Amino acid sequence: MSIELRKRLFDQLDQLVLIDPHTHINALDPSSHTLADILGYHYYTELSHSAGMSKERIEEEGISGKEKVGRLIENFGPITNTIQYSWFIEMAQKLLDFDGDSVDANNWEKLYDTAEAKMSAGNWTETVFEKSRLESVFLTNDFDDPLEGFDTSKYIPCLRTDDLVFHLTNPRTKVRLFEATNTEITNVASARIAIGKLFDHFTSKGAKACAISLPPCFAPVQVSDARAETALASVLSKGSSADEADQRAVSNFIFWTLAENCRTFKLPFDLMIGVNRKVFPAGVYQGQDLYDSRVSLIQYKDLLNAFPDVTFPISVLASVTNQELVSYSWIFPNVVANGHWWYSNTPTYIQQDCAARLEAIPRTKQIGYYSDMYKMEFALPKFAMYKRILAKVLAENFVIDRNWSEESAIELGTQLLRGNVETIFNVGK
Amino acid sequence: MSIELRKRLFDQLDQLVLIDPHTHINALDPSSHTLADILGYHYYTELSHSAGMSKERIEEEGISGKEKVGRLIENFGPITNTIQYSWFIEMAQKLLDFDGDSVDANNWEKLYDTAEAKMSAGNWTETVFEKSRLESVFLTNDFDDPLEGFDTSKYIPCLRTDDLVFHLTNPRTKVRLFEATNTEITNVASARIAIGKLFDHFTSKGAKACAISLPPCFAPVQVSDARAETALASVLSKGSSADEADQRAVSNFIFWTLAENCRTFKLPFDLMIGVNRKVFPAGVYQGQDLYDSRVSLIQYKDLLNAFPDVTFPISVLASVTNQELVSYSWIFPNVVANGHWWYSNTPTYIQQDCAARLEAIPRTKQIGYYSDMYKMEFALPKFAMYKRILAKVLAENFVIDRNWSEESAIELGTQLLRGNVETIFNVGK
Amino acid sequence: MSIELRKRLFDQLDQLVLIDPHTHINALDPSSHTLADILGYHYYTELSHSAGMSKERIEEEGISGKEKVGRLIENFGPITNTIQYSWFIEMAQKLLDFDGDSVDANNWEKLYDTAEAKMSAGNWTETVFEKSRLESVFLTNDFDDPLEGFDTSKYIPCLRTDDLVFHLTNPRTKVRLFEATNTEITNVASARIAIGKLFDHFTSKGAKACAISLPPCFAPVQVSDARAETALASVLSKGSSADEADQRAVSNFIFWTLAENCRTFKLPFDLMIGVNRKVFPAGVYQGQDLYDSRVSLIQYKDLLNAFPDVTFPISVLASVTNQELVSYSWIFPNVVANGHWWYSNTPTYIQQDCAARLEAIPRTKQIGYYSDMYKMEFALPKFAMYKRILAKVLAENFVIDRNWSEESAIELGTQLLRGNVETIFNVGK
Repeated sequence: MSIELRKRLFDQLDQLVLIDPHTHINALDPSSHTLADILGYHYYTELSHSAGMSKERIEEEGISGKEKVGRLIENFGPITNTIQYSWFIEMAQKLLDFDGDSVDANNWEKLYDTAEAKMSAGNWTETVFEKSRLESVFLTNDFDDPLEGFDTSKYIPCLRTDDLVFHLTNPRTKVRLFEATNTEITNVASARIAIGKLFDHFTSKGAKACAISLPPCFAPVQVSDARAETALASVLSKGSSADEADQRAVSNFIFWTLAENCRTFKLPFDLMIGVNRKVFPAGVYQGQDLYDSRVSLIQYKDLLNAFPDVTFPISVLASVTNQELVSYSWIFPNVVANGHWWYSNTPTYIQQDCAARLEAIPRTKQIGYYSDMYKMEFALPKFAMYKRILAKVLAENFVIDRNWSEESAIELGTQLLRGNVETIFNVGK
Repeated sequence: MSIELRKRLFDQLDQLVLIDPHTHINALDPSSHTLADILGYHYYTELSHSAGMSKERIEEEGISGKEKVGRLIENFGPITNTIQYSWFIEMAQKLLDFDGDSVDANNWEKLYDTAEAKMSAGNWTETVFEKSRLESVFLTNDFDDPLEGFDTSKYIPCLRTDDLVFHLTNPRTKVRLFEATNTEITNVASARIAIGKLFDHFTSKGAKACAISLPPCFAPVQVSDARAETALASVLSKGSSADEADQRAVSNFIFWTLAENCRTFKLPFDLMIGVNRKVFPAGVYQGQDLYDSRVSLIQYKDLLNAFPDVTFPISVLASVTNQELVSYSWIFPNVVANGHWWYSNTPTYIQQDCAARLEAIPRTKQIGYYSDMYKMEFALPKFAMYKRILAKVLAENFVIDRNWSEESAIELGTQLLRGNVETIFNVGK
Repeated sequence: MSIELRKRLFDQLDQLVLIDPHTHINALDPSSHTLADILGYHYYTELSHSAGMSKERIEEEGISGKEKVGRLIENFGPITNTIQYSWFIEMAQKLLDFDGDSVDANNWEKLYDTAEAKMSAGNWTETVFEKSRLESVFLTNDFDDPLEGFDTSKYIPCLRTDDLVFHLTNPRTKVRLFEATNTEITNVASARIAIGKLFDHFTSKGAKACAISLPPCFAPVQVSDARAETALASVLSKGSSADEADQRAVSNFIFWTLAENCRTFKLPFDLMIGVNRKVFPAGVYQGQDLYDSRVSLIQYKDLLNAFPDVTFPISVLASVTNQELVSYSWIFPNVVANGHWWYSNTPTYIQQDCAARLEAIPRTKQIGYYSDMYKMEFALPKFAMYKRILAKVLAENFVIDRNWSEESAIELGTQLLRGNVETIFNVGK
């Protein structure tokens, strides 16, 4: 009974047209040209590397896309169990008319050619949007992105701020900031002006969120202007050789200034909490980051109290932090539970985390899912995975365990998938 | 098959007459007078606040109970998914003959009036006890509670000690202690005398437990009398401006003294581990506390070893600590796993935590559930939630996965729900 | 449907002949002589102790095996719910032709006598291997084990190194090391020579792994030879009264040297992370250890990067660390997820942890299970427990949720149970 029920709920949820509230899509080149764009995604290169393929073979310069895809697929044997592999297969079936259920040395070349032919169609991006039932996607824009040359109602800008908070020690960041704002950062006042200009620019281009990813050790506090002044002077002159305490004070000052601008410009501030960068420096591109799961939202206590009128959609990297996310969203009006991020974006953790959220966080304060994708073709299989799990949780924990009607369950699922994205980010209505 | 099985097990477990081993019931006013008493429960006010209702509107002084209930229910839309909402509906159905399955602007007023009529009956409290199949409830008494005017075999006293351990910096605590014991605390010796008198008083009134809630950073150690002497002098003279180290030493001294008295008076010492108070000071009444899930039972190593003859029923606030609770209960004879507390009192976490306990802790060392309620009407829906989950775990993990008979499964469930409360707290036999 | 499916998958997996990649079997006395050997296992004595039986009664010197078994079983009432009890019953049913489903004061004596008769047969060990469908087992050998008198292809040596890393402060360790290697440790150079000789000896006897258990606070770093020299001098002269920093430096130096030898000798290095020893010193033999679940694999970052060509099969003690194990195995080519250890070796945690691994770690990098047993009779019920859970996960998460064929699911299960043990440890092929 539960399996048919799950299917019925999934089929309903699968009809919805969605807005993807967090991706890394390049608005000027949103979809793939060949399977090399697909399999260049770090999920495939890092798993292949982990399973024994050398980095040199995966990332050899100068090889053709076809050569790269062939190498990867011929070594796919060890990762056929992974959910990431299943994304690839489902994508191929639904978008590329692939009729197999596995891909290997024998059949990849035909798939490659078919893909290349389909992807070269002028309307390929449109086809992907349509088949994926997507209306628009949020971007992840560098702070100095001109945001030009695309439809910002379909590719919705989002100001990504990691560089500002954590890499002002890099002289290049200062240069980029000057080029973007025509303001040279020399002190607290000019830093505030420059950051304000970024928000002006982004919101004038229709940006709907500010976002940042944060290491587990980060615990934002407000620093006085005087302290910010000396710390900033140290960091601007000494770069990465500045005192750690100064670097931390600058990060805090910039971070706090971003939150102030989110308040002024009424932008939600997406916090993606928990990543340690370059834990495995010999890893493939984008396959080097991991985490320390010993992190707590208590580290954000001051921030959440200081900005009651800023909405913080929070993603946590490890499922062990999910219960804190549930509890903080249940208590703090300005905290929203946001999607299932990266290492927690696999079915077992999604199911546990989704179920815990659905039963204890107000239904208006949960964003079901975002794809985090770099190429448009991944929305379909990733959202399909999520919708199956959501349907399972709604079926088992609501319809069966709590006697909900199927209609009510679908309404709840719809709100997580679409409604809350509209209301929280003020889009698509 | 599993669903019918779960139902059969639930129906059996639901027949049991229970003792609720932890509540915040006021023995002099145990049940509600109107729905305002029900919806004044922090679970509703804090969720409504989190979902966007202003604190001013929720807690406006001088409004009638009916006005307050109307305001809350008319804003219930965003929390209809929560398990807390379902408690309210089930309570209304089972205790107030409500025949709907949702409550909103259109039907709340009639429900309010019905409730007021029923609750004004002289035997309402008795009716609630009976319909809830409750025999007695444990209280949470301030240390200076006279414990008079009620039947202490039905409303079982429990000495709550947070104020003594953590708020001796508050001059008022010292005054209250003097008033309760006629002993002025001036040094270690008089502190011991005063605390001994509290235990005398409580046990003479039938108290069956001592209890305390503890922050995640607390790690009790025994301090020498000499150290306690100087620390106590500092805290008694300087209050909250005393050195943190002195405050901590006093907390440790008092805590250790409580454990010594639990040994002398043969009282279990309920430890409720993990809460940070006032994390969200702008929150509604009782809706301000949260936690840092980075806590370990290793912090209690010295205590557990020092008091082998004191039973410690332990509750943990976050489900990530549950496995430690399972393991420590499996190894330490004096550790008992106690209920599903607060932020872990939602179905997904209860199910995972309950299943893990049932398969690895001796069956005699697990207290299934307590309601933690402030008003008697909540025992029914909260215990019903737990019993459904317990029935599910027994059905799936024991009858199906391990081929247990239904009779054996019910025996195990009965022991968790009733038997162990009797043996561990020495009540109701 | 799912239950029949699970059974079909289990039946297939149950046919496999396995190699147990981690046990504490004594190759010179591998199986039990009476039930006292079985119930002397710490799982039974510690649960009985936890449930109220005194240590004196459990461990009284001079009592017969039969007396000991009688005492334990007559007190089994409180632990009949535990999975450990179910191991005993299944073992008795499958190996001893016991036809009951519980054991108590009324029937234990007959079972004891039957067991003794069966176990006294000359081919009992062979019978157990056969009925358990085991081909060989890994041992846990002290570094000074002569490894003589047994078939090392059936009882595969494994160099256990806790004493070297953590107990060089004990003068006895130094003596044992000298006796084993004819090398007196006086400095860094001689320590390297002695350790190299241990690896020579072990690999010449067919050792297939090096192993160690580690406390939660351990975070290995490379120390310079100069630092190692002073630290070693301090520890060798002062023993356990040496500075903690020196002790830590020596632990790091020895640990790093072990990893270097694993590289040289191409041995996997089993890391069993997270145990605190003697947390409950008054506990029964082997029933005193617990843990602090606040541990992270980030502590092993330097090690994993420094030894890309050493395979690290990692076990974690607490399920809250499992997601890190999944993620680190998914990223680092040299990390393998290894079994379900000790306090995480119970069905609820195995199911959650196994499911998370299966969907995100390359299938070649997961060792399904090891028994950790001290006597051969436990392989059967422990592996049976694991295979039932594995069959459940494969049925529900792969065949049902992901439309896998049963054949593919069985292939995956087979790889976890047998194939990966062969490839990772280079045995049994």
